[in-house]
Amino acid sequence: MADQGATQTPTQTPTPTPAPTPTGRPPKISNRGRAAGPVDSSNSETSDIPEIEFFGAPGPRGYPPLTEFLDIWDVDMIKRPDEYNKIEHHTMLFNSDHLIVRRGQEFRVKITFNRPYNSEEDRFALEFVIGSSPQYSKGTYMPVFPTKDRTSPWEGRVVETSDNIVTMGVTPAANCIVGKYHMYVAVLTPFGIRRTRRDNTRDLYILFNPWEAADAVFLDDDKEREECVMNEMGIIYHGAYDDIAERDWNYGQFNYGVLDACLYIMDRCEMPIINRGDPIKVTRKASAMLNSRDDEGVLVGNWSGDYTYGVAPTSWTGSTDILLSYSSSRMPVCYAQCWVYAAVFNTFLRCLGIPSRVVTNYYSAHDNDGNLKTDIILEDSGRIDRKRTRDSIWNYHCWNECYMSRPDLPQGFGGWQVVDATPQETSDGMYRCGPASVHAIKHGQICFPFDAAFVFAEINSDVVFYSRRKDGTLDPVKVNRTHVGRMVITKTPGEETRRDITHQYKFAEGSNEERTVLEKAEEYGCKREKINPALADVDVNLPSLEISVGEDFELDLEFVNHSNQRRTVEAYVSGSVVYYTGVSGYEFLFKTPTVTLGPGKTVKELVMVESKSYMEHLLEQANLNFIVTGKIKETGQIVTTMKVVILKNPKLIIEVSGKGKVNEEMIATLTFTNPFSYSLEDVNIRMEGPGIMLPKSKYYSVIAGGSSLTWTELFTPQRPGRTRVVATLDCPTLRQVHGQASITIKP
Amino acid sequence: MADQGATQTPTQTPTPTPAPTPTGRPPKISNRGRAAGPVDSSNSETSDIPEIEFFGAPGPRGYPPLTEFLDIWDVDMIKRPDEYNKIEHHTMLFNSDHLIVRRGQEFRVKITFNRPYNSEEDRFALEFVIGSSPQYSKGTYMPVFPTKDRTSPWEGRVVETSDNIVTMGVTPAANCIVGKYHMYVAVLTPFGIRRTRRDNTRDLYILFNPWEAADAVFLDDDKEREECVMNEMGIIYHGAYDDIAERDWNYGQFNYGVLDACLYIMDRCEMPIINRGDPIKVTRKASAMLNSRDDEGVLVGNWSGDYTYGVAPTSWTGSTDILLSYSSSRMPVCYAQCWVYAAVFNTFLRCLGIPSRVVTNYYSAHDNDGNLKTDIILEDSGRIDRKRTRDSIWNYHCWNECYMSRPDLPQGFGGWQVVDATPQETSDGMYRCGPASVHAIKHGQICFPFDAAFVFAEINSDVVFYSRRKDGTLDPVKVNRTHVGRMVITKTPGEETRRDITHQYKFAEGSNEERTVLEKAEEYGCKREKINPALADVDVNLPSLEISVGEDFELDLEFVNHSNQRRTVEAYVSGSVVYYTGVSGYEFLFKTPTVTLGPGKTVKELVMVESKSYMEHLLEQANLNFIVTGKIKETGQIVTTMKVVILKNPKLIIEVSGKGKVNEEMIATLTFTNPFSYSLEDVNIRMEGPGIMLPKSKYYSVIAGGSSLTWTELFTPQRPGRTRVVATLDCPTLRQVHGQASITIKP
Repeated sequence: MADQGATQTPTQTPTPTPAPTPTGRPPKISNRGRAAGPVDSSNSETSDIPEIEFFGAPGPRGYPPLTEFLDIWDVDMIKRPDEYNKIEHHTMLFNSDHLIVRRGQEFRVKITFNRPYNSEEDRFALEFVIGSSPQYSKGTYMPVFPTKDRTSPWEGRVVETSDNIVTMGVTPAANCIVGKYHMYVAVLTPFGIRRTRRDNTRDLYILFNPWEAADAVFLDDDKEREECVMNEMGIIYHGAYDDIAERDWNYGQFNYGVLDACLYIMDRCEMPIINRGDPIKVTRKASAMLNSRDDEGVLVGNWSGDYTYGVAPTSWTGSTDILLSYSSSRMPVCYAQCWVYAAVFNTFLRCLGIPSRVVTNYYSAHDNDGNLKTDIILEDSGRIDRKRTRDSIWNYHCWNECYMSRPDLPQGFGGWQVVDATPQETSDGMYRCGPASVHAIKHGQICFPFDAAFVFAEINSDVVFYSRRKDGTLDPVKVNRTHVGRMVITKTPGEETRRDITHQYKFAEGSNEERTVLEKAEEYGCKREKINPALADVDVNLPSLEISVGEDFELDLEFVNHSNQRRTVEAYVSGSVVYYTGVSGYEFLFKTPTVTLGPGKTVKELVMVESKSYMEHLLEQANLNFIVTGKIKETGQIVTTMKVVILKNPKLIIEVSGKGKVNEEMIATLTFTNPFSYSLEDVNIRMEGPGIMLPKSKYYSVIAGGSSLTWTELFTPQRPGRTRVVATLDCPTLRQVHGQASITIKP
Repeated sequence: MADQGATQTPTQTPTPTPAPTPTGRPPKISNRGRAAGPVDSSNSETSDIPEIEFFGAPGPRGYPPLTEFLDIWDVDMIKRPDEYNKIEHHTMLFNSDHLIVRRGQEFRVKITFNRPYNSEEDRFALEFVIGSSPQYSKGTYMPVFPTKDRTSPWEGRVVETSDNIVTMGVTPAANCIVGKYHMYVAVLTPFGIRRTRRDNTRDLYILFNPWEAADAVFLDDDKEREECVMNEMGIIYHGAYDDIAERDWNYGQFNYGVLDACLYIMDRCEMPIINRGDPIKVTRKASAMLNSRDDEGVLVGNWSGDYTYGVAPTSWTGSTDILLSYSSSRMPVCYAQCWVYAAVFNTFLRCLGIPSRVVTNYYSAHDNDGNLKTDIILEDSGRIDRKRTRDSIWNYHCWNECYMSRPDLPQGFGGWQVVDATPQETSDGMYRCGPASVHAIKHGQICFPFDAAFVFAEINSDVVFYSRRKDGTLDPVKVNRTHVGRMVITKTPGEETRRDITHQYKFAEGSNEERTVLEKAEEYGCKREKINPALADVDVNLPSLEISVGEDFELDLEFVNHSNQRRTVEAYVSGSVVYYTGVSGYEFLFKTPTVTLGPGKTVKELVMVESKSYMEHLLEQANLNFIVTGKIKETGQIVTTMKVVILKNPKLIIEVSGKGKVNEEMIATLTFTNPFSYSLEDVNIRMEGPGIMLPKSKYYSVIAGGSSLTWTELFTPQRPGRTRVVATLDCPTLRQVHGQASITIKP
């Protein structure tokens, strides 16, 4: 208590001076006195409970030997993938040595006693324990009894007895904690309790149960459930609204070690054990933990183009490598961009049994203030002011939807919920987002937790073009109310096609409902630009283009004069390479044509784009952004148009041969030809496939211009069904090259 | 790109192996490509803007000398405390060299030109800039014009002109960013803009404005506003529900450097500048930043009793030392408990102009799951099971209320909002709480942000006594629905008394409304214990006691038999020292009387408590907790009662002498007598008073048993009005000793 005068207070301390103390030492902090004990927040630190617990003091001859009562010889968890428990609980695909079941649904355990069980006289219980301070009232210690006279929140019954063997049925509560439990068999005698010794092989995992009506994640649709819980093979959409591209992704939620890695994520952030049965809390926490910001979470974001010390986001083929790396190294994994966050989050959710899917929103506004506008600043002349234009619209953005009831909200907001693990700027100061009810977003009910206003802005912002006056003030000159949130899509359940779910987020553009929703959102504090500047009477259009990387091409600008007067447009045509986040890089093209249009006339203006002008500046997703802005001389009105052109990359060719039967070896042959005249250096190729091949990778220091490579890989399918081999190629000068081959494995 | 195979993936990598790379290096992270620029999040890094900005290219003879146009000779910010601006804006108490005004209200600036201003020809503007990337559309660059033909969101007008002097009136928008702005005078010429050079003395602070109807923090009540914004001298209540104690606290929000320290807190957590005009975001962020958890915030919590490397929470007399220490050392300050968090938070809020008060909730449930119950586990015999009882009820807990509208919520939830900076366990994973609408809490509308369910549980939980069976299951035996949230109080505006505001949080106990509210809260997922065990027909009562530290005393247990049969109670009487958090320390008393009661009879049982049994174990707030539990032999029913006894500490005596006039020296004399037979060691004494004395402290290595000390301090009152000298004494063996003297200073 002697150092506060000197080190803690900046004010003048009067004499006498405080006693000398060790300054600069880290402050000593303890929570003794604040809480009765530490919060139980680790699933990996489950405590053992004693083998023998006597009641009261020993008698005159000491304690009696409890083995005189019922004795346990064997416990069978019935945990083989082809046995009752895993089939009934839809957990047969998990590659795990343990029993894995879902809550709210009966599973069975076979106990062999030393003699036949007598239900009148013998008293035993199965005990389930999770975490380091097991307590009945917290749901972390749960005895389950075979008879009706003793009950607990988990139901128990004797399913069958034969000889010394009792088959016990256990139904965990439909809201119980999700995670890894220890199981004991306890025999109650008049003198005390005798338990089986802790045995790792009897540990079991209890997951969320979308098949059980009483579970908060119940999803009453077989096809959706099959897709959103059981399917490992994902398709994630990217590219542009009018030029959609696909990315294959192996979620790998059933791969060996993935379930433990998902539980480790919750341990790592010290999520209290008792909250782990609540899908709202689990998904909110996970949205924070999937990114490394704030909390040393799973994935490090990197949008810089320089991935020297990690794996380029475009290079991953699935989640398995990422999750296993995180749980073994206990370090964030490098690197991710939005689809990587969404894909790994999807693995986490499907693995734990929360139905989920990855969705893609085209032209996603990235707004850090919950305001409904994205500002583009033009100079007085009509040219874009790159220095002052700081908002950006992502060409696309991926997030997750997960399915659950929302007892914390008024009726009607259950169902699909947006969660997003990509670290965007958040007004709430933490890098996480959701769960936000999709229904609430659609109806502008953005006052409800969590982060509905943020998601609402991502799909409903207006793009406002401002003209900047010399005195620094801005005048709105054009408002585009339809650009942002142009389309939201996801994979169709059970098929390999996409499904437009925009209508789940928004009412039809221009409908009465849409207007009502925007007004509702404004009531909750969303700010919009009210001024509706008159539309210019000249339009400028940019065509859609299919261009391969390395091609020269022509940009065919079309100016249309809708007025019956002559019009002169002083135009600025700008082409720049662009990140998928809408942030512009190098401007490789800049022209200032002046176009004169007779009344009602259309004029075309051709602009040549040579590959040499953009090739060396290309960013990883090979997107070019063309912006045309200009001022009509006669009226002072502003014309604008924007277009993202996705250059087509070369492909990896994968061919698969073999019988296509479980447990019979097959061959995957990957070939790639460098289509360029220059060499590709530091090339990494990755390949994997759900149920058939764990992630593999290969490194090539150089692939000479025009040359080809072939990689042949043997693999042995583990289970029947339709699946894919997916592969990516990645090097600093060429990213986002993929290939895939679909195959069907027979039993 | 060469190292991912080896370092990033745990799976087998096929040959060829990746090129060698520097493993173990920290990953290189850049946000280039993710956003157009860094988020502007520092008020201390406001950029300068150029003195001269030419329009277009120079003419054939170069640029003209802009000084030919209007030239600025002097700018007067009218910033003396007795001048117009500070008086009108209620900022005259701030000890600052700068202009401090409130938004939404006109302030004035006098500009002296080189010649009389001609409103027809001369064009000038005042420009206000905040942050590092000033932008008009973001509200971080704001030109204000003297004429109506140019407008901006901040209104400007010429109030008066005389000779070369123009008095300009500026009204910042009522929702503008709060913080420190740079001001420039810009003259617009046909060739360019010419500005005054950056001058620190023209920097000004713009604060929230509770006097302005258009401001979100408008509070239409003179008395409340005077208390909750302008008053520095606080009273914070503690002790027990039936034995309320007071703590004096000097908020010191107007002291030199405190406003800068408050802005530094927001800079430290990189709160985006553009969010700093929104009181919802500012208070939420601050509730996280006031504690050091997660974010290296202001105060380190410590409930251990060991404060060797810092200041004991009970030792502080005000917020000034804490805030100045944080902003100068940039290190969290040691140590705080709930009232310290609440008091410093209060300073922050009042300093920025958000009306706020500290409230105290007696018997505050500390629940980490939003559940409405606190579990107390009894053994089968009726004795308390200390090992398994892990929930605790804080004897009291302090939090803040702040006043604001809530445009993010449906109508009706504006007004007082709970915010709490004490780091409790939160289900949402971050140590922060609120703002939660008090009105929403009262009506059980706990679905609205932020953290209303958590606060609801703090005042509405049930205490449930469980009896634990031998097989580990629990049976509820008693439910106390009135213990928690017994009373919420705060200081009365303008007076030195307390005010009961329980009714603002809860409907009357037992009313229909109360039942409706609890049902509503349950709809939103709060879980309660439904079983209502029959009340025992024997009551046990503990009397209220007034005991000084070091006294022996008798505990007078009263057993009342309400039945018409004989009853035998096997009782357990336990006394332990207790933290104010309800966590028990050393158990110094344990008795097991058996009490036999005739039909309808009352029996008293005396238990002697000797001071030597508790003295050496006393915890800092000198609270003793007595719990009586027991089982009625005849019925098996459980009886329980609990009482916290607050031992009275010796006092500091403060006497003040002098004329009691502004700027005339006065004397404060503090005396203290050690009432014990043993010495007090390592004693720190602190003293301060709003408007009269900055924080002072003194250290005494030993105060011998029975001896006295006197500390005489000269001080000079700075301003008139009623104020106090407050002092604390603190040493490891005796904490929470205070004294105060009220005085009135004449002008």
